[in-house]
Amino acid sequence: MLLFFTLFFSLQSYTLVCQEGSEDQDAFFIKNLYTTALGQDLSYDWLAGLTSQCAGRLAGSAQSEKAIRYTKAILDTLGLSKTWLQPCIVPVWERGDKEQVKIMTSSRVTNRELNALALGFSGASPVQGITAEVVELHSIEETEKLGRKGLEGKIAFFNRPFDRTMLHTFRGYGSAVDQRVYGPAKAAEYGAVAALVRSMTPNIDDVPHTGVTVFKDSSKTIPAIAIATKDADLLSDLLQSGPVRVSVKTNCRTLPDKGSYNVIGEIKGSKYPDEVIVVGGHLDSWDICQGAHDDGAGCVQSMEVLQLLLKTGYQPQRTIRCVLFMNEESGSGGAKAYAEEAKKSNEKQYAAIETDAGGFTPRGISCEGEESTFIERFKKVHAWNDYFEPYDIRITKGGSGADVGHLKPFGTFLMGLRPDSQRYFDIHHAVTDTIDKVNRRELALGSATMASIIYLIDKYGL
Amino acid sequence: MLLFFTLFFSLQSYTLVCQEGSEDQDAFFIKNLYTTALGQDLSYDWLAGLTSQCAGRLAGSAQSEKAIRYTKAILDTLGLSKTWLQPCIVPVWERGDKEQVKIMTSSRVTNRELNALALGFSGASPVQGITAEVVELHSIEETEKLGRKGLEGKIAFFNRPFDRTMLHTFRGYGSAVDQRVYGPAKAAEYGAVAALVRSMTPNIDDVPHTGVTVFKDSSKTIPAIAIATKDADLLSDLLQSGPVRVSVKTNCRTLPDKGSYNVIGEIKGSKYPDEVIVVGGHLDSWDICQGAHDDGAGCVQSMEVLQLLLKTGYQPQRTIRCVLFMNEESGSGGAKAYAEEAKKSNEKQYAAIETDAGGFTPRGISCEGEESTFIERFKKVHAWNDYFEPYDIRITKGGSGADVGHLKPFGTFLMGLRPDSQRYFDIHHAVTDTIDKVNRRELALGSATMASIIYLIDKYGL
Repeated sequence: MLLFFTLFFSLQSYTLVCQEGSEDQDAFFIKNLYTTALGQDLSYDWLAGLTSQCAGRLAGSAQSEKAIRYTKAILDTLGLSKTWLQPCIVPVWERGDKEQVKIMTSSRVTNRELNALALGFSGASPVQGITAEVVELHSIEETEKLGRKGLEGKIAFFNRPFDRTMLHTFRGYGSAVDQRVYGPAKAAEYGAVAALVRSMTPNIDDVPHTGVTVFKDSSKTIPAIAIATKDADLLSDLLQSGPVRVSVKTNCRTLPDKGSYNVIGEIKGSKYPDEVIVVGGHLDSWDICQGAHDDGAGCVQSMEVLQLLLKTGYQPQRTIRCVLFMNEESGSGGAKAYAEEAKKSNEKQYAAIETDAGGFTPRGISCEGEESTFIERFKKVHAWNDYFEPYDIRITKGGSGADVGHLKPFGTFLMGLRPDSQRYFDIHHAVTDTIDKVNRRELALGSATMASIIYLIDKYGL
Repeated sequence: MLLFFTLFFSLQSYTLVCQEGSEDQDAFFIKNLYTTALGQDLSYDWLAGLTSQCAGRLAGSAQSEKAIRYTKAILDTLGLSKTWLQPCIVPVWERGDKEQVKIMTSSRVTNRELNALALGFSGASPVQGITAEVVELHSIEETEKLGRKGLEGKIAFFNRPFDRTMLHTFRGYGSAVDQRVYGPAKAAEYGAVAALVRSMTPNIDDVPHTGVTVFKDSSKTIPAIAIATKDADLLSDLLQSGPVRVSVKTNCRTLPDKGSYNVIGEIKGSKYPDEVIVVGGHLDSWDICQGAHDDGAGCVQSMEVLQLLLKTGYQPQRTIRCVLFMNEESGSGGAKAYAEEAKKSNEKQYAAIETDAGGFTPRGISCEGEESTFIERFKKVHAWNDYFEPYDIRITKGGSGADVGHLKPFGTFLMGLRPDSQRYFDIHHAVTDTIDKVNRRELALGSATMASIIYLIDKYGL
């Protein structure tokens, strides 16, 4: 790329929708938010601290407590109306020693260790491990078909791949993740002694990706472990030519529930202080990673939104509140506590936006809400698309997020920031979710996008 | 990010514009191109080979020759109608030993080495180096103002920053790069003994970014060197409190021009074989990097376009030609040779698309052309925006690229692939331009986008 810019910029028809003093002060203000975000952002530096000092901040862990203190201290520097810690109850699960999955015998390969990560809420194996024959499955339905006859005493291996041909990777994830969430418990019902799950990623590589699995009865757990996609392919290949025996060792444990906190800061509304617009992400991460994109990015972006509104001199009519939810990954204790508190208070949860899909270039804002009021409100919000056109961002209908979703019963207008999704499942729930995968500008553009929609909602109402 | 997908996908209003057997076969075919690209792409693996085996492939270098053989061999595997090497003439510049820039004396700092990279076509210093006082400048005009009186015997230091508040980073680049291209020669005119240029990046870090500088008279060169932005800030800061003497050492040299090649492969058109649609990137890179994004990505994407059209069974009416241009970075010898050859032939250069802005998620296709025919043709192409809507890609007016730009006199309809630009200047012309910065899916989506527009142009004409 040499002098290409001369061609590009002499000819490109870039529309400047906004000039100071022109009719559209809103377009001007929004441009100011983007410019401020790109030029005076703090979020990346905050994220560098969070990921280096508070990596592996699974709810209930010492690292999560450190993250609470770290982010609260940042909020305290911003000159907000109020900051506080909101108590919540979280389940506590610990991985224990490094899990082990090993192909013991097969037609070709023996004594081969696989790249593995126990799933959240996995049970422990006996101390000596479990060695058993592997049965490959591709769905929950297949588990039911095989039943006790096919699964008793076996290791169930869920291997339906993430569909990488889907344009939106969240759809690819959606195409496979039921196996991780429900597969191990279902296999345990039929007597399987352990479960292996193909990692949820479009890539074929050696990186295992963890995530939650659900055992309704925590006394009936089995070891449930994600293995890397390359290893899953190997295992599947070996199973073509005869039985494969695998040994599995975990010493995970689930401890009693514990108290923790959401971290909150707000700018009080000048006119409607009891009408609250929430912007939030989740503070917890998986234990094995920095949680840079998931969801350190969302936390620092949410704090940056307040910073941007203050720095650009905006005086909100409504209260703008940043909520760093605890425990999204493993139980939503934080979201539940926030919703319960909201129920008791006189506040109106007016609108909420969640950022929990990575700190990548924002591509859209998706909106949902209680049916009775949603259509009219969405019409209004949708009309603001023109303001986002210069930033290539679209307002659409769609899901919001796992945390703010708890506000749906309040009639809250719910939104989710939709960043470009192509890279998310490279790093999702894996040791590779590190700060070097986050780009400062992309992160800042997400903050500016959320600040802009909040500005419009606050100024014009819904 | 836990069960967020359930919310997202149960509610999102995703429009499927295409179903097999429905009215719109074109939407279906384009979906097939994207699906094939995401599921059966080869480009990332090609790029892994190119970057590991043929890093530092500056035109005229042994590595560039290796890259010619490497990519020709790939094209030969695709089952194309024809592949060939097209001779061209390229200038030859060599960096020589590692350049050195050192703060010798200043008010605070002494003997501090800076992170530096000589610019392409920089001259050599005397063997012992040059030590002189630094003068900071912010524009070419300022150089003229200072004149011989201010610059003779001095080291000119161009330090106007890349504007990082611009949404599109190519605009930020455009806001500063004239200093790199024209600054050193202008300073030399007024007797400066060397030139330092602040690296062209929005980041404040220790990574120097090279690029071409232009000396019209190659016997009147001076050492011209990019320094990292952190070092530029330090230097500027030191200059606030008194004179700073810096020593500079380079032993770059410019050798006589040399023969090289463009690498070309094509699928012959069934109906209009003499009407050619070009897709291309440039094969050369800077000497100090893998050139993964710039422009290894563009090369493998251009080859992938042919692969995708073959794999999806498309039989083009016109000839679809992939051209890997040599020497875009330092003289455009390849583009000139292609244009000259085109002039001599009976072919019509019908349309051309260039990909030289990084292998990131595609956001648009920008179009330009000779005035007399452009407006009508663009109207037709612009109407195809609907086909790209599901992929969040927009067809706009705008520049094409430095290589295909040479076809403008032929009345060719010219296009440029416009990927997301946020990360490009993190790695542009720097040692950090490596394969690990390229995402397989983003790369593949760029190929699918170009294959789609080529399909439409070929099928319906312009």
